[in-house]
Amino acid sequence: MRTRATDIRVRYAETDRMGIVYYANYLIWCEVGRVEFMRELGRSYAVLETEGYGLAVSEARVRYLSPARFDDLIRIETTLASVRSRAVTFDYVISNAESGARLATAHTSLVSIDVGGRPVALPPSFRAALEAVL
Amino acid sequence: MRTRATDIRVRYAETDRMGIVYYANYLIWCEVGRVEFMRELGRSYAVLETEGYGLAVSEARVRYLSPARFDDLIRIETTLASVRSRAVTFDYVISNAESGARLATAHTSLVSIDVGGRPVALPPSFRAALEAVL
Amino acid sequence: MRTRATDIRVRYAETDRMGIVYYANYLIWCEVGRVEFMRELGRSYAVLETEGYGLAVSEARVRYLSPARFDDLIRIETTLASVRSRAVTFDYVISNAESGARLATAHTSLVSIDVGGRPVALPPSFRAALEAVL
Amino acid sequence: MRTRATDIRVRYAETDRMGIVYYANYLIWCEVGRVEFMRELGRSYAVLETEGYGLAVSEARVRYLSPARFDDLIRIETTLASVRSRAVTFDYVISNAESGARLATAHTSLVSIDVGGRPVALPPSFRAALEAVL
Repeated sequence: MRTRATDIRVRYAETDRMGIVYYANYLIWCEVGRVEFMRELGRSYAVLETEGYGLAVSEARVRYLSPARFDDLIRIETTLASVRSRAVTFDYVISNAESGARLATAHTSLVSIDVGGRPVALPPSFRAALEAVL
Repeated sequence: MRTRATDIRVRYAETDRMGIVYYANYLIWCEVGRVEFMRELGRSYAVLETEGYGLAVSEARVRYLSPARFDDLIRIETTLASVRSRAVTFDYVISNAESGARLATAHTSLVSIDVGGRPVALPPSFRAALEAVL
Repeated sequence: MRTRATDIRVRYAETDRMGIVYYANYLIWCEVGRVEFMRELGRSYAVLETEGYGLAVSEARVRYLSPARFDDLIRIETTLASVRSRAVTFDYVISNAESGARLATAHTSLVSIDVGGRPVALPPSFRAALEAVL
Repeated sequence: MRTRATDIRVRYAETDRMGIVYYANYLIWCEVGRVEFMRELGRSYAVLETEGYGLAVSEARVRYLSPARFDDLIRIETTLASVRSRAVTFDYVISNAESGARLATAHTSLVSIDVGGRPVALPPSFRAALEAVL
């Protein structure tokens, strides 16, 4: 499983007065996608934090292809792109789950940090779990 | 000073596809209002937290009278309504700063908590500062 | 069906630096609850809007009982409370879907409006569908 | 004036449970920056919309260098990067207004659209105003 799909319904709160989803909200959907990716891997992000680790985003990119609208069913496909000692990257394809239309693609780079916010190596078992799917 | 006014500009992100500000965002404006109220009182909320205290909202009410729109200049008038050993309440009047039109009124009750989230008496000097303006 | 339950997962974006869900986000969950209530009733809110109607919130109240946290599975129980010619009210109980712990209760009043934002009678079939479940 | 600086105060709502500003919110700050850029240029984005035009984001990138925290005073420096017939790009530098520390850099590409969401040439006077500062 290198790619995991998660479906969400667009909330009214996520739209703006252009009648479409506000552009920053796609990054929230990416977060939902990678949290579900890690859950499926058996490595809950919530548990990772209780163990004293965090993943801080160091870079994010989104290409907006077609607008998402209120009440659309959205599919977020999250793909693990790379793993290194202190960093993980994910790619995302966001589409309309009903029509299949591609709405956006995105990429995020995350850095492993400790509770003080300092860069630290990923927990070995977490890194191994990620590498196993690459 | 029992009332403090703060002006903010409506962000595009705060609107929804009805073309007006999404209703939950008024509670964010109330937060901005009470943070500025405390700053003017000389009791920064950020400093209060570094001292191990927090204020958790226990109740919130908003009446929506007239819609706020993108780019409107909004005035938040925050009034300290009551202070008790472990609780503080604020009233808010949200209006259009240019036309004066009243857009919403709101009320929040906050409970003093420690870093573990347990109810605790307000710091004595903070409570005294609040009571001095009542 | 006068009450409809919807489950959602708490997003990282919804938390604040107190480590719990930011208080304004509960109103977003209420919106999700009432949109799903209407869908189950066979009266999609998205379709209602395409027909030229909207529901604008005129009042909202939330009582916060216990904090929601990142990754919690949350249950929103939405109950139709009243229907009048131009207004609908809903009650909400928000709880932890796994432990059953009650986290918040809420109430919203909504006013029927036309595309110009003017109060207007609810579409007769929509009103009838709501009254049928009361 | 090819660069315009705008200062904002970090809201509690913008933080997450890592204790820092949630990554999607930087894109909201970029929006604030470019809206203020256009206002200073004498071309209010709100007015542009009333004239039947919009600017839809087609691409966004953020590099996160150092975290922003609650109550920090943040400076958004927005620079017009390029103008074409139907597209505008902006660069952003986001820093702590008090310490000067650089927190993030960002880039957005925007496409000119009409009220139906179709790509359309920028209004000539708007394009001229943008080109005059390049």
